[in-house]
Amino acid sequence: MRIARFSLDGTVGFGVVEGEPSSPEGPVLDIIKGHPFAEFERTGQKLPLSKVRILPPTLPNKVVAVGRNYAEHAKELGNEVPEVPVTFLKPSTSVIGPNDPIGYPSFSNEVHHEAELAVVIGRLCKDVPRERAKDVILGYTCANDITARDVQRTENQWARAKGFDGSCPLGPWTETELDAADVGIMCTVNGEQRQLGRTSEMIRPVEDLIVHITQAMTLLPGDVILTGTPAGVGPVNVGDEVAVTIEGIGTLTNKVIKRD
Amino acid sequence: MRIARFSLDGTVGFGVVEGEPSSPEGPVLDIIKGHPFAEFERTGQKLPLSKVRILPPTLPNKVVAVGRNYAEHAKELGNEVPEVPVTFLKPSTSVIGPNDPIGYPSFSNEVHHEAELAVVIGRLCKDVPRERAKDVILGYTCANDITARDVQRTENQWARAKGFDGSCPLGPWTETELDAADVGIMCTVNGEQRQLGRTSEMIRPVEDLIVHITQAMTLLPGDVILTGTPAGVGPVNVGDEVAVTIEGIGTLTNKVIKRD
Repeated sequence: MRIARFSLDGTVGFGVVEGEPSSPEGPVLDIIKGHPFAEFERTGQKLPLSKVRILPPTLPNKVVAVGRNYAEHAKELGNEVPEVPVTFLKPSTSVIGPNDPIGYPSFSNEVHHEAELAVVIGRLCKDVPRERAKDVILGYTCANDITARDVQRTENQWARAKGFDGSCPLGPWTETELDAADVGIMCTVNGEQRQLGRTSEMIRPVEDLIVHITQAMTLLPGDVILTGTPAGVGPVNVGDEVAVTIEGIGTLTNKVIKRD
Repeated sequence: MRIARFSLDGTVGFGVVEGEPSSPEGPVLDIIKGHPFAEFERTGQKLPLSKVRILPPTLPNKVVAVGRNYAEHAKELGNEVPEVPVTFLKPSTSVIGPNDPIGYPSFSNEVHHEAELAVVIGRLCKDVPRERAKDVILGYTCANDITARDVQRTENQWARAKGFDGSCPLGPWTETELDAADVGIMCTVNGEQRQLGRTSEMIRPVEDLIVHITQAMTLLPGDVILTGTPAGVGPVNVGDEVAVTIEGIGTLTNKVIKRD
């Protein structure tokens, strides 16, 4: 099931996406009554997807991200595969939705795309044992861990390099039935392929990341885990259109714009 | 003015603290109608402070913290003073209030106290010019940037080492009239002095930190900036009582307990 968050005439809601983008009548949203993180039902009231604004599929309290989780990517930046996962935070103010613009930050001259599988957490959890890790997942979406690479090099901690406004595009929706163990993940810039990998190449799979993170901190419903990026990261510039596609989920597209 | 956040019989509210802890009748709370981040007035309805539970003075969306902002502290950990501020995030789930217990984390054997001046942000802001930095501050409170020092040494990014549940005690209230440029800051463990400094020793004062952080990210009302810790950090153990006192604000006390 694909659960999208949307706004229409100033009202925010959730709906189940039915139909493929390629179908003649286009996909529709079956409006949800209730909340996807709790009890909900479909109302049968339907809206064409083209009539609404699709929002980030969740408004996370926090985004916990893992770096260097694909060996080829660690290598391309001259890093070793770390003995323990590199864990950092992106603030809620960094989150934007599908088709929202990424404002090129004023303090960087080298902004990179990083396509990532995002885990949407479904329930409050702490100290999750590995065998129950799947139970705390609502589903998966696409993410772009936009990074000011030059700032990342000069600042010891990455709050600014990876936490600026617009640095966390999420979407287009939460897919609740995906087996994420081995799906393709791709990033294109202006239609040209830049990153291509499979989630099976992760050094630490999703379950291990949930154990590792919740050993330290409580995750809340709607929180997001970014699971690392495959090789092929590179710059985006003002005017570029960057798209993250994950097999079985869909495509998250954002355009890079000059900040006002 | 000292604005405390409190709960009483399950209801959460704000009140203005009147009177000193040492006064014979004890301090009282003048209950606020409205919200301290917007319009509010005192109701004149008063409660003894001893009758309520004092909560963290704000529920921040994020805590942005700055490392190595006192030269003597950078030196004691063998670090150089960084050319740009070391900026990291602590999640909202790390925040606890005065007298709340700090649960000793299961993944560390070396937990340290770090007394810090905390800035409580009063309004949504981005790209704040230095001359307007003061305008976005609601006030100041005490913070303890509790750190799993062993984990900080082995993990490249500090999300777990400084972001675990309970690692951000804040309180006891927000002081809105403090000139924070040169006040004393102290940390005691079981009544014994461990850290002593003055905010005037900060390498980068509060205004510079606000400029630096908001160059990258939007701050929201209630967000908190931690401004670094003076020299003298050291371990706390289960059973210890750790207290941060800042001249003109008050004392934030927390006990370290064994986690269940």
